[in-house]
Amino acid sequence: VAIWARRAESLEEALQGGYADFASCELEAVVRDADLVVLCTPIGAMPALAREIVSSISPQTLVTDVGSVKGPVVAALAPIFALRGRFVGSHPMAGSDQSGMKASRADLFSGSVCILTPEPASDLAAVAAIEAFWRGLGCQVRQVSAEEHDSMVALVSHFPHLLAASLVDMVAEQNPCAFEFCGPGFRDTTRVAGGSAAMWSEILLSNRQEVRNSTDAMIEKLSEIRKLLDSDFASAPMTEFLTRAKSQREGLGQSR
Amino acid sequence: VAIWARRAESLEEALQGGYADFASCELEAVVRDADLVVLCTPIGAMPALAREIVSSISPQTLVTDVGSVKGPVVAALAPIFALRGRFVGSHPMAGSDQSGMKASRADLFSGSVCILTPEPASDLAAVAAIEAFWRGLGCQVRQVSAEEHDSMVALVSHFPHLLAASLVDMVAEQNPCAFEFCGPGFRDTTRVAGGSAAMWSEILLSNRQEVRNSTDAMIEKLSEIRKLLDSDFASAPMTEFLTRAKSQREGLGQSR
Repeated sequence: VAIWARRAESLEEALQGGYADFASCELEAVVRDADLVVLCTPIGAMPALAREIVSSISPQTLVTDVGSVKGPVVAALAPIFALRGRFVGSHPMAGSDQSGMKASRADLFSGSVCILTPEPASDLAAVAAIEAFWRGLGCQVRQVSAEEHDSMVALVSHFPHLLAASLVDMVAEQNPCAFEFCGPGFRDTTRVAGGSAAMWSEILLSNRQEVRNSTDAMIEKLSEIRKLLDSDFASAPMTEFLTRAKSQREGLGQSR
Repeated sequence: VAIWARRAESLEEALQGGYADFASCELEAVVRDADLVVLCTPIGAMPALAREIVSSISPQTLVTDVGSVKGPVVAALAPIFALRGRFVGSHPMAGSDQSGMKASRADLFSGSVCILTPEPASDLAAVAAIEAFWRGLGCQVRQVSAEEHDSMVALVSHFPHLLAASLVDMVAEQNPCAFEFCGPGFRDTTRVAGGSAAMWSEILLSNRQEVRNSTDAMIEKLSEIRKLLDSDFASAPMTEFLTRAKSQREGLGQSR
């Protein structure tokens, strides 16, 4: 395992923590003999790094990324690796609101879903090898197009992040004293809002159209519920609505 | 510890699990010599139980409840115990989406907030004794009026429950396949939606006006965010918004 990072402190941390066999801020030295290169940077930094990497790797080197948005990433990276290296986009749905090497866990990927977004032109052996890499880390791998990925992940990750941040901001605006009374439910519901603001701003705006669609659908849903709250006969439909949501939620299993 | 429950199986479970010294479905036998009676039923069932209890207790018996809505509960129960028993409403902000005695935990209340809602007419010694009871279980106790309770708890508990259920329902409507791709973030954000539908329907409708206010504020907040997503210069304001939410969220601490 060879790690590249911008900051010398990160490299030292990686070596001292035993996270890597080799660590350097010289990209060429890190990727030169790699079988597999995994890009784990903000998605906006990926194209420039990819252009640097492509001249140092072999034509057979596997390349993937862990970007949370796949349409723009695949559109930018696939052409760069078209002549050298074999690129397939990945998105492991794991992690927490924490960041940095201290938040690492050996079982981070265990039982989580990793989405691969191969293109029609992708090398099938490369797709299989990258899929095997994620399976080896404990992931269940799914393959969909980058467009399907962005649409579905907007629903279950990008928009829910925006929703959690909006809930925190709404409560702060309405009555910040209410925070004193929050229980484990509110903490869980808003946990993701503790994630990196810069990273999430980039993700949300890179998948802007889909996040917009989810936002519209949620405003519509809340307006329905608002009407229900006005009704004199709300009890049965409210219980029905909550029963439906409960049964859908129970299908997803526990967080841990 | 003496437990009353409607179903014989619950009573057996309580005795076999060592949760109680005495358990019976005869209310009078359970409350007769009690120093403190704690009502832990759906709030709609409380007034009838209170009327049964009041004739069996002494004038000094402490009475409280754990209802999630306090205005209607205090309005119904305080007059019943005005002549016999000393009633103060409580709301411990603990628990999970699980229910039943099997979901019990010795540390359930440890570090959680318990809200007491005494009235001007409340017996001060009774308030102090009930506060001491919750502190003894590990709670931090706060006192506010029933109206303030209902307004603040709508913001951090009742409305967030409705929001989590709405998010699950919205995703199910837009594209149920997306559930397959959900990670720990979505599971946490929607965990509370797994709670009892009948209980939550009753809570939401008992605090309908405040839940309505929170719903309106959230629709307003999402509409603001929707406008931001349309802007060509969204990056800085989006990062600013997420930074503000992150810092507010971090003030609340971790779920566990």
